[in-house]
Amino acid sequence: MSSETSRVEAFSDGVFAIAITLLILDVHVPSASQGNLGAALIRQWPTYVAYLISFAFIGIMWVNHHRLFNHIRRSDNGLMFLNLLLLLGVSVVPFPTALLAAHYYSGGRTIAAAVFNGTYVVIAIFFNMLWLHVVRGGLLDASTQESAAATSRQYSIGPISYLICFGLTWISVPASLILNIALAVFFAIPPKLQDEKHAATMRSATK
Amino acid sequence: MSSETSRVEAFSDGVFAIAITLLILDVHVPSASQGNLGAALIRQWPTYVAYLISFAFIGIMWVNHHRLFNHIRRSDNGLMFLNLLLLLGVSVVPFPTALLAAHYYSGGRTIAAAVFNGTYVVIAIFFNMLWLHVVRGGLLDASTQESAAATSRQYSIGPISYLICFGLTWISVPASLILNIALAVFFAIPPKLQDEKHAATMRSATK
Amino acid sequence: MSSETSRVEAFSDGVFAIAITLLILDVHVPSASQGNLGAALIRQWPTYVAYLISFAFIGIMWVNHHRLFNHIRRSDNGLMFLNLLLLLGVSVVPFPTALLAAHYYSGGRTIAAAVFNGTYVVIAIFFNMLWLHVVRGGLLDASTQESAAATSRQYSIGPISYLICFGLTWISVPASLILNIALAVFFAIPPKLQDEKHAATMRSATK
Amino acid sequence: MSSETSRVEAFSDGVFAIAITLLILDVHVPSASQGNLGAALIRQWPTYVAYLISFAFIGIMWVNHHRLFNHIRRSDNGLMFLNLLLLLGVSVVPFPTALLAAHYYSGGRTIAAAVFNGTYVVIAIFFNMLWLHVVRGGLLDASTQESAAATSRQYSIGPISYLICFGLTWISVPASLILNIALAVFFAIPPKLQDEKHAATMRSATK
Repeated sequence: MSSETSRVEAFSDGVFAIAITLLILDVHVPSASQGNLGAALIRQWPTYVAYLISFAFIGIMWVNHHRLFNHIRRSDNGLMFLNLLLLLGVSVVPFPTALLAAHYYSGGRTIAAAVFNGTYVVIAIFFNMLWLHVVRGGLLDASTQESAAATSRQYSIGPISYLICFGLTWISVPASLILNIALAVFFAIPPKLQDEKHAATMRSATK
Repeated sequence: MSSETSRVEAFSDGVFAIAITLLILDVHVPSASQGNLGAALIRQWPTYVAYLISFAFIGIMWVNHHRLFNHIRRSDNGLMFLNLLLLLGVSVVPFPTALLAAHYYSGGRTIAAAVFNGTYVVIAIFFNMLWLHVVRGGLLDASTQESAAATSRQYSIGPISYLICFGLTWISVPASLILNIALAVFFAIPPKLQDEKHAATMRSATK
Repeated sequence: MSSETSRVEAFSDGVFAIAITLLILDVHVPSASQGNLGAALIRQWPTYVAYLISFAFIGIMWVNHHRLFNHIRRSDNGLMFLNLLLLLGVSVVPFPTALLAAHYYSGGRTIAAAVFNGTYVVIAIFFNMLWLHVVRGGLLDASTQESAAATSRQYSIGPISYLICFGLTWISVPASLILNIALAVFFAIPPKLQDEKHAATMRSATK
Repeated sequence: MSSETSRVEAFSDGVFAIAITLLILDVHVPSASQGNLGAALIRQWPTYVAYLISFAFIGIMWVNHHRLFNHIRRSDNGLMFLNLLLLLGVSVVPFPTALLAAHYYSGGRTIAAAVFNGTYVVIAIFFNMLWLHVVRGGLLDASTQESAAATSRQYSIGPISYLICFGLTWISVPASLILNIALAVFFAIPPKLQDEKHAATMRSATK
C-alpha cells in the first residue's frame, strides 16, 4: 500500500464513518403530545428497519472498500474520481433512509421505497465501476490479480440483485425490503477464494 | 498491531469520535418565547445529565476498545462483524439520550429511561461478544493471553450491572441514572493486572 | 512528508470529510402534507444541484489539498494559520448550499446564488494564499519547486473564474450555476506537468 | 511519539474536526417569509460572529493540543482521562455558540454571553489541568522539559483572561466578545522559546 492510497483510504474512512453515524439523526424522538411513548416508539418501527438496512449497507460497503484498497498497489486520477463518485453515493444514503422512514405510512410509500432501493442500485454500479477500473488499469498487486476474475463475478451480482430489489418495490414494498436485508447478509460473506489468500497474506504480514 | 487491524481501528475511532460529538446536537437552545433564559436553561438539567452520561459511556467504551485493539495481533471476519455490531450500538446512543432528555418530565419518563439504560445493556453484551471472540479465536498477542481471564471477569460484570440498572428504572428513574454514572466511573478504572503489564510494555515500546 | 504535516493533513482530511458528508443534512424530506411525493421530490431539484456542486467543489478541493501536501516537506506557523483559514471556508459550504436550495424559488434567489458563488471566490482566494505561502516560504520539496510556476498559473485562474461566476449571478442565476459546474470539472483535471512528475514519483515510491 | 499517544491523537483530532465542522449547522437559513433575504442575512450577524469566535477557539485549541502531544513521550491513565475532559469541553462548544446566536437580540443576551464566555473559562482550565499533569507526571520528552516553565506561564494566562472576559459580560456583552476575539489572536501566537526549539527539531526531523 503506497502513502498515496493511504490518504485516499483515510479520507474515505472518514466519509464512511460519518455517513454511518449521521443515520441516527433521522431517528426522531416522538414528541410528548403524541400520547403513550411506548406505543409511539413501536409505531415508528419502519424508521428502525430503514436505519438498520442503511447501517448494514454502509458497514458492508466499507468492509468491501477496505478489502479492495488492501490490494491496490498504486493510485491514479481515475481511481481518485471513481472513489469520489462512490463516496457521493455513500454520503447520500441518509436522505433515502429518512425518506423511507417518513413516508412508510403515507401515500408516497412506494416512491420512497423505490428511491431507497434505487440508491443502492446506483451505489452498487459505482462500486463495480471502481472495481473494474482497478482491475483493468492494473492497479492491483500481483497476488490478487489472479483471483480478480472470481471477485469480479461476485461483485457484478450487486447491481443486478439491487435492480431486482428495485423492481420488487412496485409489487410489494415489504418484500423488497426483506430482499434488501438478504442482500446485505450475502455481501457480508467474503468471496471464498480471495478470503483464503487474504488470510494467508495477513498471517505472514503480521508481526 | 497489523495494518489490517489499524484500518479497523481508524474506522472505529471515526465512529466513536462522531457519535460522541453529535450528542451535543440534542442539547437544544431554549427559544426566546420560553421566558427567562436562565430559568429555562436550568429547567433542562436532565438534558445535561443524559448528555454527560452518554459522553462518559462512549468515551470509556472508546478507551476499552482502544486497550482491546492494542493487544489484537490479527483480524478475521468474525472480528470485522462483531466490531461493526459494537459500532452500531455506539452510534445509536444519541437517540436514547435525546429520548430521555425530551421525556424526563413527560408521562413517558420510565419508558425513556428504560430505553436509555437498555441500550447500555445491549452495548455491554456486544462488547463482551467481541472480547470473547478475540480471546477464544486466539487473536490476542502472547503477552495478553495469560491475563485474559482476569479481564474477562471484569468485562462480564458489564452486562449484568447494566441489567440491574435497567431493572432499577422501573423502581426509580433517578436511582437508575445514579447507578449508571457509578458504572461509568467503575469501567473507567483499568483492570489492575493488565494495566501494569501494559505500562511495562509501553515503557519499552516508546522511543 | 514530516510527522508534523501528517497530523495537519489528518485534521484537514477530517474537516473535509465531515463538511462533504454534512451536506446531505440540508436535503430535506418533503412532508406527507405536501401532496404527491414524486412531484415534491422533483420540485426540489435545485436542492440536488446545489448539493452536487458543493460535493464536487469540496471533493476537488480535497484532491488539490492532498496534491499540495504531498509536496510539502515542512510546516510553519503561517501554513498552520492559512490552512485553518482554508478549512474555515470549506466548513462554511453547507450554509450557502442550504441557502441556495431554500431560496431558489423565493424572491431572494439572486442574493442566495451570489452568496453561494461568492463563497467559492473566497475559498479560491484562501487556497491561493496557502499555495503562495508554500511556494515563497520554500516549504516545497526540491522536485516540485521547478514545476511550481506552472501550477501557480493554473491555481491563479481559480479566484478570477469564480469571480466571473459571481458577477454572472446578477445577469443569470442558472448561467452562473452552469459555469460553476464547468469550473469544478476544469479543476478536477490535474495540472499536466505536475501530474507526469507525480506519476513517476509514485511509481518509484510504491513497493 | 509512541503508538499509544498516536491513537489518542487520532481520536482527539476526530473530535476537534467534527466539533469545528458541526458549528455551521447552527447558522440557520432565513425562511422565505422573513422578507428581504439580504436584510435577513445581515440581521443575523451575531450568528456569524459567534461562529467565527468558536471556529477560531477550537482551531487554536487544536493547534495547541497538537503542539502539546508532539512533545509527549508516553501516555498514562490520567492523560487519557484529562484528555477526555478537554474533548468534552470542546465538543460542548456548538451549544453555547447557538445559544449566543439565538439570544443576542432577546432578553437573555447577558446570560447567553455569560454561558458562551464561561464555557471558554472551563475549557481553558481543562487544558491547563492536562498540561500540568503532563509536566508534573514527567510525560514530556527531555528537550521540552526545560522550556516547560515558560510554556506553563503562557498557558496559565488562559483561565485568568477568559475569567476577565466572563466578568466583562455583565458590564458589556460586545466588549466581552471583542476581548474574546483578542484572546483567540493572542493564543494563536506560539510561545517564543518553544517555537524556536520546535522549528529546529522539525528541521532536523524532516527527511
